[in-house]
Formats: sequence, C-alpha cells, structure tokens
Amino acid sequence: MPKVLVPESQKTDDKMRAFAETVFASETKDENIRDEISMFDVADDCPIIHNEMAHHLHVDDDVEKRKRHQRCRTTAKAAAGSQAAATSVPVEVDMPTYLEVPDFQRVAIIGDYAAGVTMDDFELSCRGLYRALTIREKYMRLAYQRFPRTASQYLRDIEGETFKAEDQVQPVFTPPPKNGEDPFDTADLPKNLGYIARMKDGLIYVYNDAAAADKHQPKDLPCPDYNTFIDDMNFLIALIAQGPTKTYTHRRLKFLMSKFNVHEMLNEMEEMKELKMNPHRDFYNCRKVDTHIHAAACMNQKHLLRFIKKSYRVDADRVVHNLKGKEVTMKELFESLHLHPYDLTVDSLDVHAGRQTFQRFDKFNAKYNPVGASELRDLYLKTENHIGGEYFATIIKEVAGDLEEARYQYAEPRLSIYGCNTNEWIKLSIFGFYDIFKGRNFVPHFGKMLENIFLPVFQATIDPQSNPELSIFLRHVTGFDSVDDESKHSGHMFSTKSPKPEAWDIVKNPSYTYYIYYMYANIAVLNQLRRQRGMNTFTFRPHCGEAGAVTHLLAAFMTADNISHGLNLKKSPVLQYLYFLAQIPIAMSPLSNNSLFLEYAKNPLLEFHKKGLVVSLSTDDPMQFHYTKEPLMEEYAIAAQVFKLSTCDMCEISRSSVIQSALSHEEKVHFLGQDYLKEGPEGNDIRKTNVAQIRMAYRYETLCYELNLIKEGLKTE
Amino acid sequence: MPKVLVPESQKTDDKMRAFAETVFASETKDENIRDEISMFDVADDCPIIHNEMAHHLHVDDDVEKRKRHQRCRTTAKAAAGSQAAATSVPVEVDMPTYLEVPDFQRVAIIGDYAAGVTMDDFELSCRGLYRALTIREKYMRLAYQRFPRTASQYLRDIEGETFKAEDQVQPVFTPPPKNGEDPFDTADLPKNLGYIARMKDGLIYVYNDAAAADKHQPKDLPCPDYNTFIDDMNFLIALIAQGPTKTYTHRRLKFLMSKFNVHEMLNEMEEMKELKMNPHRDFYNCRKVDTHIHAAACMNQKHLLRFIKKSYRVDADRVVHNLKGKEVTMKELFESLHLHPYDLTVDSLDVHAGRQTFQRFDKFNAKYNPVGASELRDLYLKTENHIGGEYFATIIKEVAGDLEEARYQYAEPRLSIYGCNTNEWIKLSIFGFYDIFKGRNFVPHFGKMLENIFLPVFQATIDPQSNPELSIFLRHVTGFDSVDDESKHSGHMFSTKSPKPEAWDIVKNPSYTYYIYYMYANIAVLNQLRRQRGMNTFTFRPHCGEAGAVTHLLAAFMTADNISHGLNLKKSPVLQYLYFLAQIPIAMSPLSNNSLFLEYAKNPLLEFHKKGLVVSLSTDDPMQFHYTKEPLMEEYAIAAQVFKLSTCDMCEISRSSVIQSALSHEEKVHFLGQDYLKEGPEGNDIRKTNVAQIRMAYRYETLCYELNLIKEGLKTE
Repeated sequence: MPKVLVPESQKTDDKMRAFAETVFASETKDENIRDEISMFDVADDCPIIHNEMAHHLHVDDDVEKRKRHQRCRTTAKAAAGSQAAATSVPVEVDMPTYLEVPDFQRVAIIGDYAAGVTMDDFELSCRGLYRALTIREKYMRLAYQRFPRTASQYLRDIEGETFKAEDQVQPVFTPPPKNGEDPFDTADLPKNLGYIARMKDGLIYVYNDAAAADKHQPKDLPCPDYNTFIDDMNFLIALIAQGPTKTYTHRRLKFLMSKFNVHEMLNEMEEMKELKMNPHRDFYNCRKVDTHIHAAACMNQKHLLRFIKKSYRVDADRVVHNLKGKEVTMKELFESLHLHPYDLTVDSLDVHAGRQTFQRFDKFNAKYNPVGASELRDLYLKTENHIGGEYFATIIKEVAGDLEEARYQYAEPRLSIYGCNTNEWIKLSIFGFYDIFKGRNFVPHFGKMLENIFLPVFQATIDPQSNPELSIFLRHVTGFDSVDDESKHSGHMFSTKSPKPEAWDIVKNPSYTYYIYYMYANIAVLNQLRRQRGMNTFTFRPHCGEAGAVTHLLAAFMTADNISHGLNLKKSPVLQYLYFLAQIPIAMSPLSNNSLFLEYAKNPLLEFHKKGLVVSLSTDDPMQFHYTKEPLMEEYAIAAQVFKLSTCDMCEISRSSVIQSALSHEEKVHFLGQDYLKEGPEGNDIRKTNVAQIRMAYRYETLCYELNLIKEGLKTE
Repeated sequence: MPKVLVPESQKTDDKMRAFAETVFASETKDENIRDEISMFDVADDCPIIHNEMAHHLHVDDDVEKRKRHQRCRTTAKAAAGSQAAATSVPVEVDMPTYLEVPDFQRVAIIGDYAAGVTMDDFELSCRGLYRALTIREKYMRLAYQRFPRTASQYLRDIEGETFKAEDQVQPVFTPPPKNGEDPFDTADLPKNLGYIARMKDGLIYVYNDAAAADKHQPKDLPCPDYNTFIDDMNFLIALIAQGPTKTYTHRRLKFLMSKFNVHEMLNEMEEMKELKMNPHRDFYNCRKVDTHIHAAACMNQKHLLRFIKKSYRVDADRVVHNLKGKEVTMKELFESLHLHPYDLTVDSLDVHAGRQTFQRFDKFNAKYNPVGASELRDLYLKTENHIGGEYFATIIKEVAGDLEEARYQYAEPRLSIYGCNTNEWIKLSIFGFYDIFKGRNFVPHFGKMLENIFLPVFQATIDPQSNPELSIFLRHVTGFDSVDDESKHSGHMFSTKSPKPEAWDIVKNPSYTYYIYYMYANIAVLNQLRRQRGMNTFTFRPHCGEAGAVTHLLAAFMTADNISHGLNLKKSPVLQYLYFLAQIPIAMSPLSNNSLFLEYAKNPLLEFHKKGLVVSLSTDDPMQFHYTKEPLMEEYAIAAQVFKLSTCDMCEISRSSVIQSALSHEEKVHFLGQDYLKEGPEGNDIRKTNVAQIRMAYRYETLCYELNLIKEGLKTE
C-alpha cells in the first residue's frame, strides 16, 4: 500500500461525517421529488400514458371495459366534402376485411374554418392556391407525370365539372423480364417511322420529313408554350411572396403539425395494435426503395477499397489506362501515383465526407476521386475509360447482388451524362448492366448541350432499329435528373427576354429555372412521342431545394414528377403547403445533408412527415456518407433513432418510397397490393405494406379537409 | 386538358410580371450576399479552412512552403513537469519510427495556473483531489484492479517517494486456448487447499479449518476495512459538495473542453495525415469490443424472430416447457398463448424499445418478454428452463458466429445471476458456451443473497476439483456487474450504523452504495485468494450513473475497475474531473440511453470524449435498441454521424474499448501492440490501432499538465 499523506485538518472527523450525511440527505430529498414526478406525472417527452394497451394481443377484457366507459364519445364525421371522401363509414359491400379502418379517435375542428385570417385574405389565398394546383396539374398531364386523383376531383368540383378517370395519366415503366424472356432481345423493337428530329430554340421538334423540317412544319405533338410557362411562373412567384397567402399557409401548416401530434397521442397504440395483428409483415420485410442514389457512389467506401485491391491482385499487368498518350498497365498507373494498392486503407482512399465538407460542396466533389486521383475515378467509377467501364459495371453488379441478397431493398441508381458529345448515350447503353437492378432509373446529369442529351433519344424513339442497344437501354431508363451545386447562383432571371439556348454564348451560367424548363419541355415532347408508340415514358426528378433559392422549388413544382432533397421548403410556407396539397414525393437524404448542408437534428424530415408531405428516405452517396454494409438500412435506423419514429412511421415512409419509385405497375401491385393507385385507406393493403389503416385514413381525411377549405374559399365569391 | 377558371383580376399582367421580377431580384440579392459569405468567410460550424492540406499524400512542395512561412512559431515545450512526461522532444535512441510523434501545434498556457480561483481555494482543491486519488489507488490495488501508472507517479512525487513499478497491479484474464489445447480439460486444475469459506457480516472469510472458522480466526487475506471505507466515503461526499473544489474542477473541465477544440482545429489535418500514411489499418479493421452487452439481448429482434420460427419448424413436438406442473410440447405452449409462430412478426414480438419506454424503465423490463409472454423469455432467453438453456446457448453461438465472421469485433456478454439459490452457478457453468466468445465477461446480476453468489466461487477456488465444470467456467468469467433500476431510490444512508447484511430483514431495499460495498469487498478478498493460487481474477464493472443519485458514481469511483453508462457525471464536476484524472473507463451506450433516459443529441459522450475521459461505445441490448445485423457498427456509425466524429476519434474510442475490456494480455498485445500497458504515445502502435500519435501526445501531455497542477497546489503549502 502506498503511503498516503493526509493533512491533519482534513482527517474525517465527526463534523465532516455530519456534513456528509446532510449532503446525502439533500440528495435523497432531490431524488424523492424526482421520483414523485415520475410516479404521478409524465415528463414532456414521454408521449403516452393514458392510452396504454395491455401487452397481450388478446385483451377482450380490456376492450369490454373500454366500451363500458365510452359514455359520450364524439366521433366526428369524416370531414371531407367531396364524393370521393367516404362520408358514410360502414361500407360492407365486397370489401376484404383488411380494407376496413378500425375505429380511431379523430381530431375535428368545429367552428370557423378561416379563423385567424380575414375572409378577404382567406378567399384571396384560396384563389391563388387553386390556380397554383391547376398549373401543376396541367404540366404533369402534358408530360405523363403524376398528379393525385383526389386533388383533381376537388379541382373539378370547384369548376363545377365532373372528374373523368380517363383524364388521369400515369408514367409507363417497363416491367422486369418474365421467365424465359430475353431482356436483350431486339426482335420486337418497333419499326422506323421515318421522322426527322431537329432542335430549334432549345426544343427538339419532330417532322414528317426533311422538307417539313426545313420549313419548320413540325408534327402536332403537344408541348408547353414558352410564354404561358413564363406567365405561370410569374404568377407563382407573386403568389409565394403574397402576404395573406403566406400567413394563411403558415397557419395551415402549423395546424397540420399540431393535428398530427394529437392524432399520434390518441391513436399511436391503436395503430401499433393493427400492426401487431398483421401477420408475416413487419418493417424488415416491407419493400423500400432507395429513391436517390448515384451509381458512382452506390458502394460503401470499404467495398470500393476491397474492389481496388482485388482488381490489382488479378489485373496488375493489364493495360487499363491512357496516361498522357501512353498506354499503361494498372501497375504502372499506381506507380505513377506513388501508391501500392496493398497499402491502401479507407483513410488514404479518402472518399468519405467528413467535417471538412460541411458547407463546402466544392470540396465534396473532390471526394469522388479515390486517393485524390482523378485517374482512379476514371478507372473505377466511370463508364468512359480504357476498359469500357468494366470495373464500374462489376462494382455495381456486386452492389446489386448485395441488394438481392438482403431482399426487400431496391435502388434506383443515377448515371451521369454531361452532354459533351452525342456518343455518351452509346457508351452508357453498351455498358450492359441494366437488367440487374429491379428498380432502374438512370438519370443523367445536365450539361450545356441539350441536343447531345435529347437528340439521340428522339432518334432511337423514331427508329429503334437504328440503334438497338440504346433502344433496349432506354426501356430501362425511367427518368431524368438535373444535378448541380444549387448554392451557386447565376444571377440570371428567366423571362420572356432570356436568350434562347442556341444564343446563349456568354460565360455566365443560365439560371436553374432556365435549365429546368428546357429539360422538362423536351421530356414532355419525348413522352408524347413514346406514348404514341407504346413505349415507356420518362419522369423528371431533379435535385431541388438542397440549397440555393426558393425559386428552384417553384420551378420543380411546375415541372417535376418528384424531387430529391427539398430542404428549402422550410423557407416558403406557400410552397410547402402546395407540395403537401399536390402530394409531391420528396426523396430526402438526411445523412447526406448532415455532411454537406444541414445538421442531422435540424433536418426537416420529421416535420414534413408529420405535416403529411410525402417523404421517402434515400442514401444519395453511400461511398461518401455511410459506414455499414446496408446503407439504406443505416439511413432508416438513424432516422428512427434520432427522430424516434414508430414502426408505422417507418413503414409509411417505405411505402411512399415504393410509390415514388419507378418500379413498374406490375411490381407495385406485387409490393403494395392490387389497389395501390387508389388514394386513402382503400389503396393500402396492410398485409403488404404494414401501414396501419388508421394512419391511412388520418392522412386521407386530413388532405381532403384542406382541399375542401379551398373549395369553400372559392364558393363564397 | 382540364378547363381552368382564372378570375379576370388574377390574369398575369405586366404589373404582376414586374412584381415577380422584383421578388426574384431580391432573392438574387440575398443569394449573392449568402454566396459572398461562403466565398470569403466560414460558417461557425465549418471547423477548418486555414489549415487545409493538399489532397495527395506526397506534397513535399507544400511542406517546403510551410517551412518558409514559419517565421516565429512558438513551439511550446511539453507542459508536463514529471520525469515521466517527455520534456525533451527528439529521443532517437532505439525507437521504431512509428513511435515518433510528428510535429504538431501545442496549446500552452503561459501565466498563472490557478487563474480564476484564489490561491487558498486552489490549494484546498488540490489537497482534496490528491486525497481522492489516493483513496481510489488504495482500493484498486487491494482488488487487483487498474490504476494508471502516470497518476501513481505524480502521487509518489507529491509524497516525496519514488514510484516503484512493482506496486502496479493488473487483473489477470485467461488467454484463449492455444492450438490443440482443450479448453475443457480439467487435468491441470489445482489441488484442494482444504480451507473453509464462510460468510460473516456480509463478507466471506477463508479459514484454515472448521475449528478456526468456529473461532473466527480467518487467514490473513487483506480486505477493506469497513470503518475506513465509510470514512473515505464520507470524505469524498464532502469533497464533491465543497464549493471551492466544485468551482475549481468546473473551470478545469471547461478549460479541457476548449483546449481540445483548439487542438482539433489546429491539428485535425495533421492527425488525418498520420492515418493516411498508416498502411493496412483503418477504422474497419482496428479492433473494437462491445464492452457492455447483455447476453439475453445480444441478438437483434429479427434474429430472435427467425430463431423462434426455425425452432418451431424443427421442434414443434418436443417437450420444452412445464406449464402449471404439466409438461407441454412447443406446439402446446404456443397454443396456450393463442399464437402460431408462423404469424409472428417483429411487431407482434414486441421486444423493441420505442417511445413508450422513454423514462419508463418499468416498461422497458417487460420488453424482455417476447409477445409479452414470460414463458417465451424462459424458453428462449434463459439458462434455467426445461431444456437446460439449449435455445439460449444456440442463439448466443449464432451471434458469436456473426461476430467471428465480421472479424475485428468482439463482445463481452453479461449473464444474470440472481442469488436465489446456490445452484445458479452450476446451471450457468454447464451451460457450456464459454469458449466461443473471444472476450468473455459473464457478469451476474446482484440479489439479496451474497452467499449464493460468492460462496460457490470461493469453494471452487479453494478446491477446483470439487466442481470442475464451475472451475473451468470461472476461468472465463472476467468480472461482476451490478444491475438495477438506478432511478429507484431506497432512502437508506450507508453509514457505520447501517445494519449488517445478515441483519437486513426490513422490506426497504438497502442503498446502491451498500450493495456496491459488499460486492467489492467480496471480490477483493476472492481476488487475493485467486491471485495466490495463480488463477485469473475478476473486475468489478457495475452499471452506474445511468440514472439516480450522484453518490452512485462516487461509490464506483472507490470500487469499480470501470463502469457502464456514467451519464450523471454531468451533474458533478468534481467527480467528472476525478474520473478524468484517474482515467476510469466508461462504457457508454447512447442508443440505449436514447430509448430510456436521455435523447441522443443530449448524450454527454462527445463532451466526455473531448475532455479526455476514457469512453468506449457499447450496445447494451441490441434486441431492444438496434435495427441492423451489426449492432456495434450501428452504434459507432450513429455516433460518428450525429457527433461528427473524425476517424481518429473513432479509432481512439475503439482502442479504449480494447483496453477497458477483459481480453487477455496476450490478445491485447496482439491487437494494440507490445507496449500497450505504457501510457501516452509510447504505448500506442499506430499500425495496429490507427490512432494518431499526435492525439496520443495531446492526451498524455494534457493529463500530465492537470496532474502537475495538483502537485503545484500541494507544494505551495
């Protein structure tokens, strides 16, 4: 034992003992008080206590008791006013049991619906919101993109018209090959129409023949009118800046938030009970789609590292690269970088985003270069290189294999196209891995040259046989993205006076909205043509609202089937409310945001979800952001932990991801149920989705209530 | 196209267009301002910019430039005053390159070290802290538990003595069986000593024979003195409530926090550079130990579900349970519960902690029962049941298999012992899976009957042949835990007047400190005896500071080798500072806390880590808290994401987990390097741990600086 020096004055004496006991006693007292609180009271963050349910599934006893206590429960009538919304609850005709919505406690607001704003302001807001919805409806239909049937029904109601089911459009996605079907078979490609496609003013026109083209007499394919589009845009810009509408939507959104909180408090246990009674299906085996993932970063960092090492063991002497005009082997390439793959680690690979990348998108882009060497990016993560993208394709195949093994998880990888030359599509199409993923969605990058991007696609649509590889590839392309650092600003204002794309030769970049318009317009025409030929169509699903101006989200409201990110909806209550009303799907990636733009706990995902915006979870770039072998599960797990999501929340988000995705109709029927296109509880098959019918009913009734308010606001005129 | 009603007044006219352009222009202006900020300034949360390092590893050019700019760099001397701390930097004798610490920017404080408190208060605080450290040192040595050499050196310095290496003690853990060695071989068990063990006043005494026992003439095994212990405890209680010491330690801790932030800002890139230069090793392949995991919840919920379904497919007709005196088959058991395993899902299994368990530890405990049925807990998660714990053992074997497959991950599962009867140990020991885990740490639950827990262990230590199975099992037991709901308070004050355990027959529970004392005292004596016999020893590593009174952490400071949780260190700056000075390892489980006691973002893990407390990450109960197949990786990934940990942080935490763990000396040498027992950068082998030497030097110099302050404070007397 070491000698311990204890100064005389410090020896524990009776005085000290007494003091210690006093301290201890006060601690004890504190404890008792705290204990009392937790005995008879509930802390703020403990959501339920009154509504607890017994642990067993079979609590008939409890149900009996509950009924006896139901003295005067005011079950509010479903609030929706349209015929579509079920005002009479017990429909017992031909309805399988799972479609029934169990009894739940509804939040009804009795009294003045426009409380908090003047009637004039209320009417003004409703008029504006109504027109905004019709604008989106128009542009969605034109491009074969989605607009919800419920909203359309309300719009027709307002106009005094009858909703016609045939007005609804849906994009067409190619189903997976059936058993025995050869996905590469080119025999059934449609024949050549002999048309001519040419670009004029940034838009591709289709002509009967060269003579018609020279005289600019295009075929009659509906396309958006430039001036109307700018008018519509200006109207929307004015709307989102209009004081009364800002106040009104802000109040509605606050109400939606509170309403969900009340719903959750009252019905959480009932929702959970539904899920517990639902056999075979839980969060793990309900389908989820990674709705936003870049193929070039779809593997995690460890996977890429292993692949590089493995490729070196096998292919060290293979010629893989062209170094300043000289063909070099892999060994020579690594030597020129003063590297040996054997020594590489995740640290030296340096592709993971860290604290360094936060608010530094410029640095983030450099993270795509393994070991900071663009040569290695070319070799391993690109399609255009000396080995024809073989390594990249192999890595993606491995990721696909992991997904297939995990089951229930799907991904829609995005590929880059820069518009530098017309050969890019060819290179992509002979890349040859498009039958691997169950969900495929090769969405190109946008560049300056619209022709390079769209002309080959139009030509392959007119004469598929002329380029069978590209035609087959396009069958499995489901949409176009537009990716850029949104935080950079061009300063350009898109207006009728903007120069046409062909005349755009100044150094300054055109604005985001300008890009978006031309992407959308070409996709719309292309989809018209493809639809006429019975081919699959493309959706427009840009990166939007990750950073930058709120007007980006406005442009996407007009043109996009769905968007990625959407963080900046926080900044505009009018747009946020419109995204809710039009149920525009948003693929959110909080882990990506956490490394680039916004700390995890501040991410609006939870807020959007509670308010009823349609959100899904996606990974964006597993190579840069994730740690585990299952990036999508990591994304869900972290959201569940940090935001304390319930199983019902997680399954609802999973379901939204499948709906938002470009999985084919056949696959969606299989994963979500026969009636998935119907809105509200009718469209939900709990046996497949594990989403409580109570939740579905809550969402549907809430949406109908808000749409009905607009109808009421227009009626008073 | 649907007809769109546009009221005349709303048609977009020139006025509106002009307005839209104004709005857009103002947006643009905002954007430009924001853009300027991100061009020339840095947001608060963007930690580094001035200190950026080029992306390639080979930037000789940059290094050259840097040197040229080093006009008057004030490289502060290492601040530590003791001989142990390296005051002269370039030691070039016999030192492998990896042991060198690269140049880094040190934070030196020039001027009055006691700034902010009066000299009297400073001296008072130092005297108190010194005595507190000697108290811990005494009790650690007595029980063969760890106390850091650096602190001991300073204590001896203060006393004017010379530190003797042989005073250092270490626990002894059994190494894994060597190739060809049979871990079940009982041939080399030591022979019977013929001693008698008996409990008196809650403590087991060892006697030469029955006659000596009757006369209470025990053998001379050093054991803690009851009155001294209570004196020491009272001294510490007074210390943590003492105003000046509270102020002083609070200021020191704030300083430690700021100092780390400065260190990080200045050296983050240099640390990362070290890791990048370190071949073969990265976060994925440095060893990490799950330092706190309960065997009964070590599988995730999906794993348990699958196991139940699988067992039913194979064993439906097997007799597995005793239902009210009648033997029943698995089929009958499930029928009695009105369940069919085929229908079970994760939801109906209902073992996951959700929002319902937050601040409701009582509800949490019920989550151990699958489907709320304690019968299923008995069958699948217990050792004592009709099938001798076969299913439980199989599940644990499967988890162990997964860990072995993942490599680099280890776990120290804790088993429960309730002290209800003396047979519990026997049941555990024939359980027979103790050679599976590489790290083993079967830590029992504490009950009332100290004899039931300790007597069998003493007897097996005295006469191993009498119970060879238990003796072999004990070889692989590495420590004892004490688990309880800490938030319950007994109101009992542990003092010299407390009744002895045998006299404790009132209904009220004794206090946490009382439990802890008797656990510790018995372990100390047991370790003395086992050490004499050349056997492995046990550490005491209780749950502590998860909730409840601060005095729990005080008791653990006196008795525990390391603790689990430690959240409440937040409430006492004195104890927090003492845990730092004595480098007491804390196994933290932020995901568990997030479900039970404290929201994730509020967890003090990051704060403790920055200040230099020794923390590791652990899962506690994967069945209740985790989603993925790799719970420990999930725990690390979420901490990394939410707290923005750097690779160096994560590897430092991994290294701490191995040091804290009960892996044997042989394994630690293999995983951490030959010199792992040395403190500071000398003890770190970056090639194995991937922790930067700069970080190690920072930690060591910081600790020495703080210890030196105490020495200075006592010198001035």
